[in-house]
Amino acid sequence: MKKQLKNFTEKSGEIIKNKNFKIVQHGITAPSGFKVYSAHAGIKNRRDLMVLYSDVVCNAGGVFTSNKVKGAPLIVTMEKLKKGKAQALIVNSGNANVLTGSQGIKDAKAMCFMTAKELGISEDKVLVCSTGVIGYRLPINKIKSALNKFKNKLSDSKTAAHEAAQAILTTDLETKEISVAVDNVTIGAMAKGSGMIHPNMATMLCFITTDADLTQGELSKMLKNSVAKSFNMISVDSDTSTSDSVIIMANGKAGRVNIGKFQEALDYICLKMSKKIIKDGEGASKMLEVNVRGLKSEENAKKIAKSVVNSPLVKSGFPTQLIPGRILSAAGSCGVFFDQNKVDLYYEDELIVTKGKVAKYDKNKLKNIIDNIKLSITLDFKKGGKSATAYGCDLTYDYVKINREYYT
Amino acid sequence: MKKQLKNFTEKSGEIIKNKNFKIVQHGITAPSGFKVYSAHAGIKNRRDLMVLYSDVVCNAGGVFTSNKVKGAPLIVTMEKLKKGKAQALIVNSGNANVLTGSQGIKDAKAMCFMTAKELGISEDKVLVCSTGVIGYRLPINKIKSALNKFKNKLSDSKTAAHEAAQAILTTDLETKEISVAVDNVTIGAMAKGSGMIHPNMATMLCFITTDADLTQGELSKMLKNSVAKSFNMISVDSDTSTSDSVIIMANGKAGRVNIGKFQEALDYICLKMSKKIIKDGEGASKMLEVNVRGLKSEENAKKIAKSVVNSPLVKSGFPTQLIPGRILSAAGSCGVFFDQNKVDLYYEDELIVTKGKVAKYDKNKLKNIIDNIKLSITLDFKKGGKSATAYGCDLTYDYVKINREYYT
Repeated sequence: MKKQLKNFTEKSGEIIKNKNFKIVQHGITAPSGFKVYSAHAGIKNRRDLMVLYSDVVCNAGGVFTSNKVKGAPLIVTMEKLKKGKAQALIVNSGNANVLTGSQGIKDAKAMCFMTAKELGISEDKVLVCSTGVIGYRLPINKIKSALNKFKNKLSDSKTAAHEAAQAILTTDLETKEISVAVDNVTIGAMAKGSGMIHPNMATMLCFITTDADLTQGELSKMLKNSVAKSFNMISVDSDTSTSDSVIIMANGKAGRVNIGKFQEALDYICLKMSKKIIKDGEGASKMLEVNVRGLKSEENAKKIAKSVVNSPLVKSGFPTQLIPGRILSAAGSCGVFFDQNKVDLYYEDELIVTKGKVAKYDKNKLKNIIDNIKLSITLDFKKGGKSATAYGCDLTYDYVKINREYYT
Repeated sequence: MKKQLKNFTEKSGEIIKNKNFKIVQHGITAPSGFKVYSAHAGIKNRRDLMVLYSDVVCNAGGVFTSNKVKGAPLIVTMEKLKKGKAQALIVNSGNANVLTGSQGIKDAKAMCFMTAKELGISEDKVLVCSTGVIGYRLPINKIKSALNKFKNKLSDSKTAAHEAAQAILTTDLETKEISVAVDNVTIGAMAKGSGMIHPNMATMLCFITTDADLTQGELSKMLKNSVAKSFNMISVDSDTSTSDSVIIMANGKAGRVNIGKFQEALDYICLKMSKKIIKDGEGASKMLEVNVRGLKSEENAKKIAKSVVNSPLVKSGFPTQLIPGRILSAAGSCGVFFDQNKVDLYYEDELIVTKGKVAKYDKNKLKNIIDNIKLSITLDFKKGGKSATAYGCDLTYDYVKINREYYT
């Protein structure tokens, strides 16, 4: 049995090559004015409740699951974000508050109400997210007890940020945190997610804070751009959850920032968090990156990349063997037309299929490529200039084990 | 580890309730005038070559994979079937002749030529199919040797039919054969397939013979009808292969038949063969039937049924636990809009979710339902009168094992 993949470890102060930002070590509370509280409310057997608070009202935006079935907290939060403002966010793990009918909506609203009351702020500025098992009522009294006089316990320490990042995990093995500095402003983020990870988002939560002064319109547009290239291009399995959310809150404390530089940093954060989720994929032992190029439309490039990264035959085969047939077959099954006699397939930079026919390749080199913990393949259709990349992991015994045993 | 599921065993002479046909025990050579030859050509380590022959020219039709990547034999056979005539079919297992470029086309044509020469018939009346590993040239000389003077070895015996059904298998554990009598005519069939089984067909071959006198137009239309409700509604994984084919050949020897009765029998044969493929799904230990009803369009009902039956979280969870959340989530992720507060979900006839909320159900009864080897669930959306059913199996350790080890 393979070991779980280790997460990235970024170094504080690290400047990313050719990028206009640097890594800072702090997580979600890195930007000025944000604090967190977290606790073990008893919904499950470890830390399971987190509140994020900004000492001034933030402009806020979000991107949510495309699933037609939505959890109660999502319905409540999406409604509130229509106004584009937020000052706090309460999140619990252990129970997703999904398939809970009108009681679920009441409970989600109660979480916002209790948080607002303790903080002394307006209820309509408190967002809510829940993740965990589906179909059970939230233990609302346990949450109420855990929120009793929590305001004094809010902290912006690195430890507090890390504990808050722990509180939102479910089957994840590791916390997912990052923060970067762009000129005068800072961006922080935490995420969770390892099962039901799929293009168009999956039981995946990501919260992003910044002290930049950005309008709700700017935030929403930039977040949408970043999510399209990151969270919407990853897949652990092909399931899409009912609760996926990426939320960004900007409190303006550090002033305006160059939009282009901020977008670049946000892209980096979203892709980095996406990759952390993939690496923590349920049972994952290897990563797969599927590059598609040479098409006339980016949408078709995305379709093919996702089709390959989602194929159970590709996912179960790529860690141990050369599978050009499965890859081409998966590419051909998503409805995008192409000429099979023009396709080239590369494993890293080694040509495996040329013009639809298996090529003569270096067997020793290929063995090393396959044995690597990460595989990057490229399909070139030679029809145009558009490209896309999707990210995934392998399908293992452990995935099946986790999902036969984890009760949802 | 669960035992593989046993195939159906139909009884000879059995009359299916409310149906106008009866089961006969003979397989593909049951209809008059059809004979088979099979051999171990040495492409793999067991029987791997089969020829089906009719002593008169047949009207013929086929339904093929929707994958944009098609195997060389498929390209050759589809071209020949445009004329709607066939007298023989040669099939090999062990090598799919896919990703083999122009050489692959030459080899597929050579198989037809060699078969036609031995039989003394026209080359354009010989169809060809191949299934097995992808990306390797066919060992055409081994096939040539195995075809040497085979005409005298053709037989219409039950044993010969069974051996021919063995020759087309790959990772299948059991042969898949059936034959039925409708009034004066007889229909026989054989199939293979257990991996890459997906809606819109998968490394799945099914050959159907009949001595009914039917035009090519009648055959094509009826086959399309039957396939839409059977082979296109099954899934082992969500992959679609490059070689899937269902081919029907009618030699007319037994005269005309009532079209309605023939369609009914053909529907039965295709659904029965589909279920045999599901039961032999790679690593499968349990069957899943997903009924969707109460929608305004049949297409949407099919989309939802397929989305549920394909979900890795549903497939890995349903054998051991109650998973209403995963089922609703899979239903909601295929793009079809519905009101989550109106959905009912049944496990067999037990109500599990009512109006989008988990219902009070009989836990003991439910345990028995889940422990059963076959689970039938029903989603009722209460929006209209259209329905659909999809068929699948569970995702098991064995699926992963087979597909990490089987080289394609």
